[in-house]
Amino acid sequence: MEQIESVKEFGGWLNRYQHGSRSCDCNMTFSVYLPPQTERRPVPAVYWLSGLTCTDDNFRVKAGAQRYASELGLALIIPDTSPRGEDVADEPDRYDLGMGAGFYVNATQSPWSRHYQMYDYVTRELPALVEDKFPVTAGLKSITGHSMGGHGALICALKNPGVYSSVSAFSPICNPVNCGWGEGCFTAYLGPDRDAWAAYDATCLVESGAEALPMLIDQGTNDEFLADQLHPQDLVRACEERDLPITLRLQDGYDHSYHFIATFIGEHLAYHAATLNR
Amino acid sequence: MEQIESVKEFGGWLNRYQHGSRSCDCNMTFSVYLPPQTERRPVPAVYWLSGLTCTDDNFRVKAGAQRYASELGLALIIPDTSPRGEDVADEPDRYDLGMGAGFYVNATQSPWSRHYQMYDYVTRELPALVEDKFPVTAGLKSITGHSMGGHGALICALKNPGVYSSVSAFSPICNPVNCGWGEGCFTAYLGPDRDAWAAYDATCLVESGAEALPMLIDQGTNDEFLADQLHPQDLVRACEERDLPITLRLQDGYDHSYHFIATFIGEHLAYHAATLNR
Repeated sequence: MEQIESVKEFGGWLNRYQHGSRSCDCNMTFSVYLPPQTERRPVPAVYWLSGLTCTDDNFRVKAGAQRYASELGLALIIPDTSPRGEDVADEPDRYDLGMGAGFYVNATQSPWSRHYQMYDYVTRELPALVEDKFPVTAGLKSITGHSMGGHGALICALKNPGVYSSVSAFSPICNPVNCGWGEGCFTAYLGPDRDAWAAYDATCLVESGAEALPMLIDQGTNDEFLADQLHPQDLVRACEERDLPITLRLQDGYDHSYHFIATFIGEHLAYHAATLNR
Repeated sequence: MEQIESVKEFGGWLNRYQHGSRSCDCNMTFSVYLPPQTERRPVPAVYWLSGLTCTDDNFRVKAGAQRYASELGLALIIPDTSPRGEDVADEPDRYDLGMGAGFYVNATQSPWSRHYQMYDYVTRELPALVEDKFPVTAGLKSITGHSMGGHGALICALKNPGVYSSVSAFSPICNPVNCGWGEGCFTAYLGPDRDAWAAYDATCLVESGAEALPMLIDQGTNDEFLADQLHPQDLVRACEERDLPITLRLQDGYDHSYHFIATFIGEHLAYHAATLNR
């Protein structure tokens, strides 16, 4: 693991690293924000999963999260959204498949399966590396994300009961088996058999009996992708049928951008801190 | 004036406009953040002047300022850093001259003088437009900025006593007649006669007796441009010789990036609000 950037912010350090990933069989880049509290003690970690087209850079530059992480004593762990590199399969003309669109699944189909193992990467390999190398409290973590990364956060929590202390999401893709983005990626990465898709769909996981933490979801009402891609009402209905706790906050007038995330990231981090610092 | 973008953030609206500028003889783009308080009453405005290579976009996306502006009830006015367009003079191979590098002066030399009238634009034309079109309190404004824009904020305040309620700067170019960036732009825009340059140099303005507001300056000690380009000690010395109030805060370990601005923009906006809301 090599540190490739280090910038002081809000009394802590925003660092970027590159490492050879076994899961993804390529070099992966990620960022870590270490709040000032880490000079004296380990802190809990919040994982942020980004959306389509993003790298680790968008969140660290645009969300304004470091301010709250510094106040709350939380480390932020910010992975990339896919494997990358010259020999990594891609569809260069599409923003919603291939590089930048890993969808947080383990691909089973050629040519994707060699590198696109983002589910293992974000749930196993990266946390093991982070807990080994940084002053974070082993085993004490939460997860959140935006859009494709909101989907990622929800499925990581639903598929790993007891691993995450809390979960939240901004504008998540809640039922990817029933939207264009999800159908495109799942067909490519997982093959045409839709039964295989349900293992990576938050709504399907709830319907099939997954153990669930309370889920906090913020969704802008002016989000240009709400009607066609996100379907939060499907997830809410699935939770209600099982009497599972979910809070969907429809935020009037907000869109799908990082300005929306910036507005509410403080409340999400406080939500996670309330559980993590208990 | 045409609105070309509108995004909700922190309960207010981050809007972007284009208009035909008389000063710069071209279309200019600027952004305005209107905090939620403007639904009920006009608010004071803080002008933000950006640094080399920036447009209005960098600050609105990276600084995290809207959060504080929303809390404090301040409008943010964010102009571009130069005229732009196909017929606007430029040096495409240089980041520090031409488009993105207007230096907040009125150019007198060909080919720059036709469009590069940024001093008039930010001190006269834009405030008149803003006070005509938006719910801001006429005549109640402060100014701040970063690097080349920190220089701009300081000279705008020093050259217009009584016009700005307060002034601050991040990593400003404090003595441009004595650094490479300033010498390059001033030679091009103002000609070889260095006497003409002093009218746009904060240190020279203080030395020659300008009326001065208290100046608040934040400067990172790890700033890669500090030694060669910024020279805050020159401005401090000039102020001390005249017994003028200046606060230079050397912030340990911070660099020249927006992560530095993000860390302290809240304190700067609170500093301006304390005067503006008095």
